[in-house]
Amino acid sequence: MGGVVRVLGVDPGLTRCGLGVVDGGKGRSVTSVAVGVARSPQEDELASRLLTVSTEVERWMDVHRPQVVAIERVFSQHNVRTVMGTAQVSGVVALAAARRGLTVAFHTPSEVKAAISGSGRADKKQVTAMITKILGLTEAPKPADAADALALAVCHLWRAPMMDRLAQAEARAAELARNHRAKLKEAQRKQGADTNAAPGTGGRTR
Amino acid sequence: MGGVVRVLGVDPGLTRCGLGVVDGGKGRSVTSVAVGVARSPQEDELASRLLTVSTEVERWMDVHRPQVVAIERVFSQHNVRTVMGTAQVSGVVALAAARRGLTVAFHTPSEVKAAISGSGRADKKQVTAMITKILGLTEAPKPADAADALALAVCHLWRAPMMDRLAQAEARAAELARNHRAKLKEAQRKQGADTNAAPGTGGRTR
Repeated sequence: MGGVVRVLGVDPGLTRCGLGVVDGGKGRSVTSVAVGVARSPQEDELASRLLTVSTEVERWMDVHRPQVVAIERVFSQHNVRTVMGTAQVSGVVALAAARRGLTVAFHTPSEVKAAISGSGRADKKQVTAMITKILGLTEAPKPADAADALALAVCHLWRAPMMDRLAQAEARAAELARNHRAKLKEAQRKQGADTNAAPGTGGRTR
Repeated sequence: MGGVVRVLGVDPGLTRCGLGVVDGGKGRSVTSVAVGVARSPQEDELASRLLTVSTEVERWMDVHRPQVVAIERVFSQHNVRTVMGTAQVSGVVALAAARRGLTVAFHTPSEVKAAISGSGRADKKQVTAMITKILGLTEAPKPADAADALALAVCHLWRAPMMDRLAQAEARAAELARNHRAKLKEAQRKQGADTNAAPGTGGRTR
C-alpha cells in the first residue's frame, strides 16, 4: 500500500447515489478502482429508501475499505423535496463512515469543479470529460452521478494535502500569536512589578 | 398492552434533538412515557455529531420499544446550515427506525400545531402549554425541542386513525372507479360485438 490513500466519493441521492473509489499515490497520481450507483425505488417509503441506499453504500465501504469518504456538500437553493432527500442520504452515509472510524470530508460542487477542471463554473459534461481523461478511462462513466462521485474522490485527494498544509500553517500562526501574547503579558507583568517596586510612584490615587 | 400504540416523537437537530415517548390508548387518550433530548457538541465534526445523536436515539428505541417513530418533516425555508444538519439527523433517525422494522411517519410543524392546538399558526409557547395540559404533566417539558417531540407523538396518534380512514376511503373509491371502468368497457365490447354481428350495418366505409 505504501503512501496510497483510498477515497470513496459519494454523490448523495435517493434515486441514484453515485459511488466512486479512487486510489491516490505520490503527487497527483490517481487510479480508478470502482464506480457505480446505489439506487432505491421511487415508489418505496422514504425510510425504506434510506435503508436500501445505506445498505449498498456500506457494502461498498466493506468491500473497498476506503480510508476516507468524500461527500458532496448539499445546498438548499434547489428543489426543496429533492434537497431534503439528498441531505438525508448524505447524513446516513456520513454516519456509516463515522461508525467505521473513517475520515469524512465534505466538498461543495464548485470545489469539485475547480479541482478537476480549474474552473468552478464547469458544466456536468466538462467534469465528466475531465475525470475520464484524468483517470485514463476508456469510456466516460455513466450516469453523471457516478462520474461526479469519481470527481469528488479526486478532488479530495488533490485538495487534502493543501488543506493539511493550510491547517498546519494556521496552527503555527496561532501558536506564534499565543507566544506573542504570552510575552507581551509577561512584559506588562514585569513592568507592573517594577512600577509597584518603586515606592511612591504608580500608586492609584483616589 | 391491548390496543396501546407507543410512538417515539423526534424533533430532529444536531445540537438538541427532542425525544418524546407517548402511549396512545382508546379514543384520544394519551400518556407520556418519557421525554428528553439527545445532544452533540458543536465543536465536534459533523459525522461524529451524527453518530452521537444517532446512538442516543437508537438507545431510546431499544429502551422504550416504540411501534412508530414520528419525525418532524424539515423544510428548507430557514437557515441553510441548520436545515442541512436537521435533515441529516432526520435521515439517520428514519434509517435506525427502518432497520428495526418500525413504522416511520413524517408530520410538518403546522400539522403538529393544528393537531395539538387546533391552529396551524400556534407559537412554540402555546404548543408547550397545550401539550403539558393534554398529557397532564405537572410542569412544562423543557427545552422546547422536548415539548415538540411529545407534540409530534400525540399528533401522530391523533392523525393516524384519520389518515388510515382516508387511505381506506381512497382505496374504496379507486376500487369503485376500477369496477365502473371495467363495466363500461364490457358494455362497449358487447355493443361492438352486437354491431359486428349485424351484417351491413356499422361497417366503416372508406
